[in-house]
Amino acid sequence: MYSFKNDYSEGAHPRILNALLETNFEQVDGYGEDCYTQKAVELLKQKIGRNDLDIHLLSGGTQTNLTAISAFLRPHEAVISANTGHILVHETGSIEATGHKIISIEVGDGKLNKSHLKAALDSHTDEHMVKPKLVYISNPTEIGSIYYKDELEQLSRFCKENKLFLFMDGARLGSALCSEENNLELSDLATLVDAFYIGGTKNGALMGEALVICSESLKEDFRFHMKQKGALLAKGRLLGIQFLELFKDNLYFDMATHANLMAGLIRDEISKAGLRFLVHSPSNQIFPILPNRLIAELLKNYSFYVWSQVDADNSAVRLVTSWATKEEAVLAFIEDMKNAL
Amino acid sequence: MYSFKNDYSEGAHPRILNALLETNFEQVDGYGEDCYTQKAVELLKQKIGRNDLDIHLLSGGTQTNLTAISAFLRPHEAVISANTGHILVHETGSIEATGHKIISIEVGDGKLNKSHLKAALDSHTDEHMVKPKLVYISNPTEIGSIYYKDELEQLSRFCKENKLFLFMDGARLGSALCSEENNLELSDLATLVDAFYIGGTKNGALMGEALVICSESLKEDFRFHMKQKGALLAKGRLLGIQFLELFKDNLYFDMATHANLMAGLIRDEISKAGLRFLVHSPSNQIFPILPNRLIAELLKNYSFYVWSQVDADNSAVRLVTSWATKEEAVLAFIEDMKNAL
Amino acid sequence: MYSFKNDYSEGAHPRILNALLETNFEQVDGYGEDCYTQKAVELLKQKIGRNDLDIHLLSGGTQTNLTAISAFLRPHEAVISANTGHILVHETGSIEATGHKIISIEVGDGKLNKSHLKAALDSHTDEHMVKPKLVYISNPTEIGSIYYKDELEQLSRFCKENKLFLFMDGARLGSALCSEENNLELSDLATLVDAFYIGGTKNGALMGEALVICSESLKEDFRFHMKQKGALLAKGRLLGIQFLELFKDNLYFDMATHANLMAGLIRDEISKAGLRFLVHSPSNQIFPILPNRLIAELLKNYSFYVWSQVDADNSAVRLVTSWATKEEAVLAFIEDMKNAL
Amino acid sequence: MYSFKNDYSEGAHPRILNALLETNFEQVDGYGEDCYTQKAVELLKQKIGRNDLDIHLLSGGTQTNLTAISAFLRPHEAVISANTGHILVHETGSIEATGHKIISIEVGDGKLNKSHLKAALDSHTDEHMVKPKLVYISNPTEIGSIYYKDELEQLSRFCKENKLFLFMDGARLGSALCSEENNLELSDLATLVDAFYIGGTKNGALMGEALVICSESLKEDFRFHMKQKGALLAKGRLLGIQFLELFKDNLYFDMATHANLMAGLIRDEISKAGLRFLVHSPSNQIFPILPNRLIAELLKNYSFYVWSQVDADNSAVRLVTSWATKEEAVLAFIEDMKNAL
Repeated sequence: MYSFKNDYSEGAHPRILNALLETNFEQVDGYGEDCYTQKAVELLKQKIGRNDLDIHLLSGGTQTNLTAISAFLRPHEAVISANTGHILVHETGSIEATGHKIISIEVGDGKLNKSHLKAALDSHTDEHMVKPKLVYISNPTEIGSIYYKDELEQLSRFCKENKLFLFMDGARLGSALCSEENNLELSDLATLVDAFYIGGTKNGALMGEALVICSESLKEDFRFHMKQKGALLAKGRLLGIQFLELFKDNLYFDMATHANLMAGLIRDEISKAGLRFLVHSPSNQIFPILPNRLIAELLKNYSFYVWSQVDADNSAVRLVTSWATKEEAVLAFIEDMKNAL
Repeated sequence: MYSFKNDYSEGAHPRILNALLETNFEQVDGYGEDCYTQKAVELLKQKIGRNDLDIHLLSGGTQTNLTAISAFLRPHEAVISANTGHILVHETGSIEATGHKIISIEVGDGKLNKSHLKAALDSHTDEHMVKPKLVYISNPTEIGSIYYKDELEQLSRFCKENKLFLFMDGARLGSALCSEENNLELSDLATLVDAFYIGGTKNGALMGEALVICSESLKEDFRFHMKQKGALLAKGRLLGIQFLELFKDNLYFDMATHANLMAGLIRDEISKAGLRFLVHSPSNQIFPILPNRLIAELLKNYSFYVWSQVDADNSAVRLVTSWATKEEAVLAFIEDMKNAL
Repeated sequence: MYSFKNDYSEGAHPRILNALLETNFEQVDGYGEDCYTQKAVELLKQKIGRNDLDIHLLSGGTQTNLTAISAFLRPHEAVISANTGHILVHETGSIEATGHKIISIEVGDGKLNKSHLKAALDSHTDEHMVKPKLVYISNPTEIGSIYYKDELEQLSRFCKENKLFLFMDGARLGSALCSEENNLELSDLATLVDAFYIGGTKNGALMGEALVICSESLKEDFRFHMKQKGALLAKGRLLGIQFLELFKDNLYFDMATHANLMAGLIRDEISKAGLRFLVHSPSNQIFPILPNRLIAELLKNYSFYVWSQVDADNSAVRLVTSWATKEEAVLAFIEDMKNAL
Repeated sequence: MYSFKNDYSEGAHPRILNALLETNFEQVDGYGEDCYTQKAVELLKQKIGRNDLDIHLLSGGTQTNLTAISAFLRPHEAVISANTGHILVHETGSIEATGHKIISIEVGDGKLNKSHLKAALDSHTDEHMVKPKLVYISNPTEIGSIYYKDELEQLSRFCKENKLFLFMDGARLGSALCSEENNLELSDLATLVDAFYIGGTKNGALMGEALVICSESLKEDFRFHMKQKGALLAKGRLLGIQFLELFKDNLYFDMATHANLMAGLIRDEISKAGLRFLVHSPSNQIFPILPNRLIAELLKNYSFYVWSQVDADNSAVRLVTSWATKEEAVLAFIEDMKNAL
């Protein structure tokens, strides 16, 4: 039974474990004030090409989202999110638990655009309603689509004009940036959004997300918020060492590229077979629409999620690949699929 | 420069890193539903000697405290804590951030007793005040003292009689249970408190606390609270594998015993020299009162916290040992101290 | 300029002001422990026909909703509401500010039914999502429709079967119960819902809502929650005296009946003219669809809200009548409307 | 049985009820946008002598405290309060319920000074602790003492130098400003604090507090916070009309002066009798220390609170007078006291 259920089924890239081993007995300061975290932060600034950034390492996506968003907003301010937004659906109301409403926008492809934002602003007119203030986007989105440069520029401009913060959930950012279709650079992000994070958990780390705060006004006192939300690890080195390893050469991007390639192999084969997809996805999550009969057959040897029923005979499934996905498993899956078609 | 600043200066016990390496490429389920977490939970139940426990693995002390306490209380209910309580002072208002007041009780030795609780109940008489509901204790306390069996039994009885929950912060529980003076067993805890946790971060794990919920009424839906607070790791295996390694034999207790022994060596020597302590501490944190001149001398080669000024010429310092503390470093410290006296 | 904008444009029924005057110099206890509040509560129990109810008097709708809902729910539990729900749209995220998500259900007529609830439950499957726990309905709804007995019975049965709380916002409950189409009694409510409130502010009081808690499990410690949310008035008599006056005879229902009659006069005339309504509304708010030209004409002498654009030439408006609406004003409005048609 | 229990035992000054009656049938806008509220706000600005103030009318003290403080602070920021502070003890954790810790400072006379604040700042050194940001004072304090001009100036200067907000709870502000010992003007307050409120509930209104926001940075979007906390009354006129009546001539100050005079009569007599007081109180609350035997005798005909036991034979009691306190009742009380001594 091989799993295409997600990109966190395995542990970490072996280089990360080795780095932990090699540094294990050094005595360092706690709570992210260790030399490794500091080096990782400097390295990330270099990779992004900006010195005026505040970068903090946190443990996971939900933790990063709730810590950042609650730190950035005043009590009456709300978040705008696509209806597919992870914070809206799959984080157990963690944003609301910090006191903030999320305004849901129905979208087909997981992506927000300027007219969505305009509609949200137009329908929130006075103090009897929340005040929309932060736009939450994910890149790639929760359904695998990615933002292109012009799209992000347009969003960014609208946000600046309307005093909205633009926040990018980058739990799978590596996959977006390494997508064949991508035309965004890390440095673009720092210019276009107010804060974003570089996901480690879903790209080869044991855990860890690097939150990059770009806007001056959002930086102050951020470590207080981290501590208050339980997000400051005593052994902060655990995060620092991992990000140092991920970015000291091209490891982070190599892993994401591999994940994308593996998804691409399956995507191409499914396209050739004349089957369709729920959404255009050039990243490491794909959502092909398969005959239920075929799904049943594949589930004998592979695990993956059946995403949604499309019609009486067909359903969309979610297939996720990762840095650890084995090419032979992908090829076997393709073979089994062709045989069962 | 050798550090006695805390018990989280090093990484993890090598066996833990090895366990991570050995299992690294196995595909397992996410979010704590993996086989390692399940095995670790079963093992812990066995060690505690009870099957009717809910056990959850979280990342750190603040996270565990805030997730548990906010899950256990209704909005108007408050926590009672010693004035030294970690949640009261050193967690950036994390409990208040979830909406709950902490009632502070002034104590000399870090420990709450029945009459403290009675006073707190007596002074909270009606709906114009919060309703005291959960008693927070730490074992060992933040200043190194430990609870003895009769003390905990008395607290437990009072709490049951007055419908208070009793919650034990066990960030350094290993050190308490392995103290020469300790007469509590893990199994006693499950009987005497409503919930407690077994700290891993400060006893040889990379990170991790095992929260043990003993009372039936506190168990329901706990994973929802974990997810909401950002405490469910995607790669939950990281916690499961560690606790499995810590408890599959005596590793957890061996490490705590070592830490205590190292503290004991220093404690004995300081006693012999006729110096006093801020508080009686039979665990891995000691607070000797030293001449300022001696402190200055020691700080040249060792790092540790100066805790509080005692008089014009003397201050209390905090010395912390751990599973990783080297005996030769301790002996050198003692030697240097004797020379400088 | 005569206003049909809302049902809180005037002060209070003169009998209420007189009652305040007559009792003004009596010394009574504060915070709702005065004799008037106690009498009002007893009287309300009598009117509802049940002794086993907890009744509390609060100042306004938003305050009542947020105090009750936050008292009833644990942190991970969520509210289900129609997309028209007042708490969802017009209370500035007050429920989210207490930490709870509201799940929005798209409905045409403002009313929830069993299949809406089932869909909400079915789509919330595990701890990665909030747990739906309380169903919020308004009677009449925010767009003037009312719940009929069989509808409420069906909802109630579903909620009981699925351990959901059913909560009725009765900001305009008088108008619903006095509607010609209504077949619900006050006593039915106490059987069918877990808690509801009897709105005073929008039916002749200066302010005040009587929250009726029917379910035993929701009663405990409610006054703590009131105090914590700022909902316990020092001069609680102000609420007690008003509700006593409203219910010591038929005043409350007489006023609501008058409001409904006034709306009915306009409704009938609009129907006769062959014009349609946005929604079927047998209560004191009606939403006729009028030619824009006619609306412009009427706005010269009357104030009311233009609710929504229906097509290029027509819009829905909201007309609200109250206990204080003058029949001559209504007749003049009708006359003006007919002349302008 | 005559009550000296508090200053909210009676209804409102008759002029207020008359004003409500006279304006009762005028149709006005809701939610504080009516002409009376606007006039009251203008009038208050005039009385304070400043145009650059934002003034909002709320229903009660707890509501005002929690709405203002939660609006002013970011999540990690904390309040500094005297241990007698109303928000700390008697508001059911309402501030903590909005997420903020209150740092308690032990004081004898209910008043904070510069060295208290300095100690609080000095003991909060980093992100592991909350960040002290708002200083909460009450004038008069909860035990009847008042702030003198130099004291408030000193506090104000310290707060400005240390970027702390200074917030004054004025639930009984009338009594402070009309105290014989007072040397502060309304206009001083606007200069010295960042926000304060003028209490109506405890000085002759049915309910109502006028929150005055002096600092520019605290003004933005305040009505959103009011609505979110349930503090915007639909019939906002109820508050506007009252404050207009209170301040259109000297009514507010006349009532407070009367309350102070009545307290003064009792205070003088007790002093003459050689009895002491718990604290020096020149306002409408006094705390004489009386023999228990005398207390028992007085409680036969008067109601008041026994505040605290002083020694085996004596207790402090709290006697509160108000705008409505009858001089003959005071004289009778004095007579009875002298007879029983």
